[in-house]
Amino acid sequence: MPECLTVKQLWFVFLKSIVSMNQNCFVMRKLITEFIGTFFLVVVIGMVVIGGKGDFAPLAIGSVLMCMIFAGAHVSGAHYNPAVTLAVLLRGRISLKEAGAYMIVQIIGAIASASVVNFLMPGKMPDVASAMVSTSSSVVAEILGTFALAYVVLNVATAKGTTGNMFYGLSIGFTVLSMAYAFGSISGGAFNPAVAVGISIMRLAEWSQFWVYLVGCFGGAALAALVFRINNPEDK
Amino acid sequence: MPECLTVKQLWFVFLKSIVSMNQNCFVMRKLITEFIGTFFLVVVIGMVVIGGKGDFAPLAIGSVLMCMIFAGAHVSGAHYNPAVTLAVLLRGRISLKEAGAYMIVQIIGAIASASVVNFLMPGKMPDVASAMVSTSSSVVAEILGTFALAYVVLNVATAKGTTGNMFYGLSIGFTVLSMAYAFGSISGGAFNPAVAVGISIMRLAEWSQFWVYLVGCFGGAALAALVFRINNPEDK
Amino acid sequence: MPECLTVKQLWFVFLKSIVSMNQNCFVMRKLITEFIGTFFLVVVIGMVVIGGKGDFAPLAIGSVLMCMIFAGAHVSGAHYNPAVTLAVLLRGRISLKEAGAYMIVQIIGAIASASVVNFLMPGKMPDVASAMVSTSSSVVAEILGTFALAYVVLNVATAKGTTGNMFYGLSIGFTVLSMAYAFGSISGGAFNPAVAVGISIMRLAEWSQFWVYLVGCFGGAALAALVFRINNPEDK
Amino acid sequence: MPECLTVKQLWFVFLKSIVSMNQNCFVMRKLITEFIGTFFLVVVIGMVVIGGKGDFAPLAIGSVLMCMIFAGAHVSGAHYNPAVTLAVLLRGRISLKEAGAYMIVQIIGAIASASVVNFLMPGKMPDVASAMVSTSSSVVAEILGTFALAYVVLNVATAKGTTGNMFYGLSIGFTVLSMAYAFGSISGGAFNPAVAVGISIMRLAEWSQFWVYLVGCFGGAALAALVFRINNPEDK
Repeated sequence: MPECLTVKQLWFVFLKSIVSMNQNCFVMRKLITEFIGTFFLVVVIGMVVIGGKGDFAPLAIGSVLMCMIFAGAHVSGAHYNPAVTLAVLLRGRISLKEAGAYMIVQIIGAIASASVVNFLMPGKMPDVASAMVSTSSSVVAEILGTFALAYVVLNVATAKGTTGNMFYGLSIGFTVLSMAYAFGSISGGAFNPAVAVGISIMRLAEWSQFWVYLVGCFGGAALAALVFRINNPEDK
Repeated sequence: MPECLTVKQLWFVFLKSIVSMNQNCFVMRKLITEFIGTFFLVVVIGMVVIGGKGDFAPLAIGSVLMCMIFAGAHVSGAHYNPAVTLAVLLRGRISLKEAGAYMIVQIIGAIASASVVNFLMPGKMPDVASAMVSTSSSVVAEILGTFALAYVVLNVATAKGTTGNMFYGLSIGFTVLSMAYAFGSISGGAFNPAVAVGISIMRLAEWSQFWVYLVGCFGGAALAALVFRINNPEDK
Repeated sequence: MPECLTVKQLWFVFLKSIVSMNQNCFVMRKLITEFIGTFFLVVVIGMVVIGGKGDFAPLAIGSVLMCMIFAGAHVSGAHYNPAVTLAVLLRGRISLKEAGAYMIVQIIGAIASASVVNFLMPGKMPDVASAMVSTSSSVVAEILGTFALAYVVLNVATAKGTTGNMFYGLSIGFTVLSMAYAFGSISGGAFNPAVAVGISIMRLAEWSQFWVYLVGCFGGAALAALVFRINNPEDK
Repeated sequence: MPECLTVKQLWFVFLKSIVSMNQNCFVMRKLITEFIGTFFLVVVIGMVVIGGKGDFAPLAIGSVLMCMIFAGAHVSGAHYNPAVTLAVLLRGRISLKEAGAYMIVQIIGAIASASVVNFLMPGKMPDVASAMVSTSSSVVAEILGTFALAYVVLNVATAKGTTGNMFYGLSIGFTVLSMAYAFGSISGGAFNPAVAVGISIMRLAEWSQFWVYLVGCFGGAALAALVFRINNPEDK
């Protein structure tokens, strides 16, 4: 059957068609990158928190975020966080349409990671979600933590004064590390609505308090964008 | 009412006026940056120490300092510390007038952060401030720690031999990390008069022993400036 | 005896002949580098796990990997991992012949390190190897961890978009750190067939479950190479 | 008394004369830098070990070494370690005379730091020095750890292939961190004869076993220089 394609040829044709599809569709590879980054961020969060790593958890979480940022920034900008995407949108560095796609993919990544954590640690998720003691404190904590995160992102990844730097991943990852140590016991320390979705599915947070993350994370990110705009008027 | 401004237009006018104000006043944005950096440094210190993070505290504190330095250095030089500002002043890289403004804003940042910590952890601050066992040891510890900090700052952020490096934030943040592990149990490990104000308000240090920080931090910083001058005569 | 060579001259001749041998044989020095890196990686793993460093182990392991990568990448590319070598092979950055030699030397390094750990901690290796609770979970965990590792390697060490960066060692080392925190208690957290050989010899893993590492590590690495190919079609 | 110098003028004259002295004597400022670096390295070691920081000690020690290297490398090369100085001497990057001066100053720095630790923690040094369980294991551990350290130093700080990199301090500091986790409980984990002097004075090591550090550290460093020479024949 000389007319038939061998398995190897079939595979080659399949790969080539995907590649050419992706080549024409720059957004696609950005979305794949955002999915992978958010997925691993939330997988690590779930595994170390449910797995009982205690005060080592922020070190693991900040580190995986750092690594995924260093690996993905050249493709998608490495947001992995709808609040960061909002800050970058207000900063004028991403289109509204792309920002929407980013956020959706980030949330899908978080949902996927929750089911992986569930598969790897069956029956280990808490039966009852742990509720925040105080939602007002938690809103403040999420605003502060997400403000710090988005402020650092805008300054190390979009400002003229730091162009070409090689510390962006370290700065952003370890901001989350320090904010998690500071505010983790108050609000859970999400600073990221996609993470909030993930930890709510894993019953590490209460769905009825989900609004805290929406208000806190998007509020903190918007505030950071405002401060950046005021403070860096020559950066457009 | 076509003559009336809409909310959006009002917001735009407001933002534009702040931005143009800030554009003409370069000092303002430096002060905002110093405020934000010192504020988050002291918030993290308060939250992790009062929140019982134990020996993870220096990791969180060194990390937030690193991140705020990487984020703010291109605007204000990222001192976040009156003792560092003194060292940079003696090094001749900041005017006396600006240095004074920096120090005031740093202290305001520390006061603001103390009230935020109080809001987030009501009733968790100790009733009685913990006193240092030995003030003479504490003065030595603060001199050594602040000397190391200011020595590293001057060498990685102002020396010719390290121009354009990308490790300044990591070096400075992790100097505080290691000094906090070494001297934290002796003097509280402030190495920073603004931090000393913050922890005194939060009752993590005694007001009656506040002079220890003034003498130790400014003394260590001045000593570091002297050594730098002697050791780098060609750097002006 | 003026015709006799002195000891110093003999040493010089010996050194010179080795150097000239190595000069003509570029592969040799790559293999020496791969041996040293894998050896120290597995030595640290054995010493900190058997030595009871608990949750500090991933910090030590990620750090030694980072340092050995920064030290060896300019010579051999610093794989220290047959799964990474497979990913780089599929990426087209190493020849099949060299890849085979790399893998053999990596495994020899792991075997050597196991005997060193045995010498340093005689009688401290567990009598009975600890078995994974679930091999299906472990395969998934090893696929995920090795995917993350190889994905980061390909993006920070072989992609156009990150050419000339100085964070490759930090990114790769700390990916292993975070993956070890996340998956260590599920599969042992090897993410590296040479490490799997080492920990199996040290009875930290069961030989009968060795296939888990082969499937998981090589599977995850191949998947990462596929995703990289799809996502970076212009990188050849 | 117009002929009299005011205090300010006296100070100025004093400072100027020191600076001009140092300007003419490049070695002097290198020795000051080596003194400061070794002093702080050993101070941190003493404070965190005697102060009971347990498994956080290597993090503090690796960090202070990293910071002192980033701060001092542009002046003296930042050895802070007679074994590293030996390796750099064998590499041909420092003169024999200067190497000798470096080693003496490093040891003076270690002695100075031991007396500071004694002042800050009076009566807390152990009464009886802790002895190594096995000197043969300890020699191997010190050889391995110092080999890794010197191998990383030579590759990240003197090799052509890594010229101009900005990760040298991180690599070297965190090599000591990981080696300390791996071998600390075997040999004490000095990897540095000056540190060995310091910890022997502080009774963290036995003087009668001091030879272990001499043999291990200088042996490991010499071995690393040999391997580097063989592996990088084109680097002179």
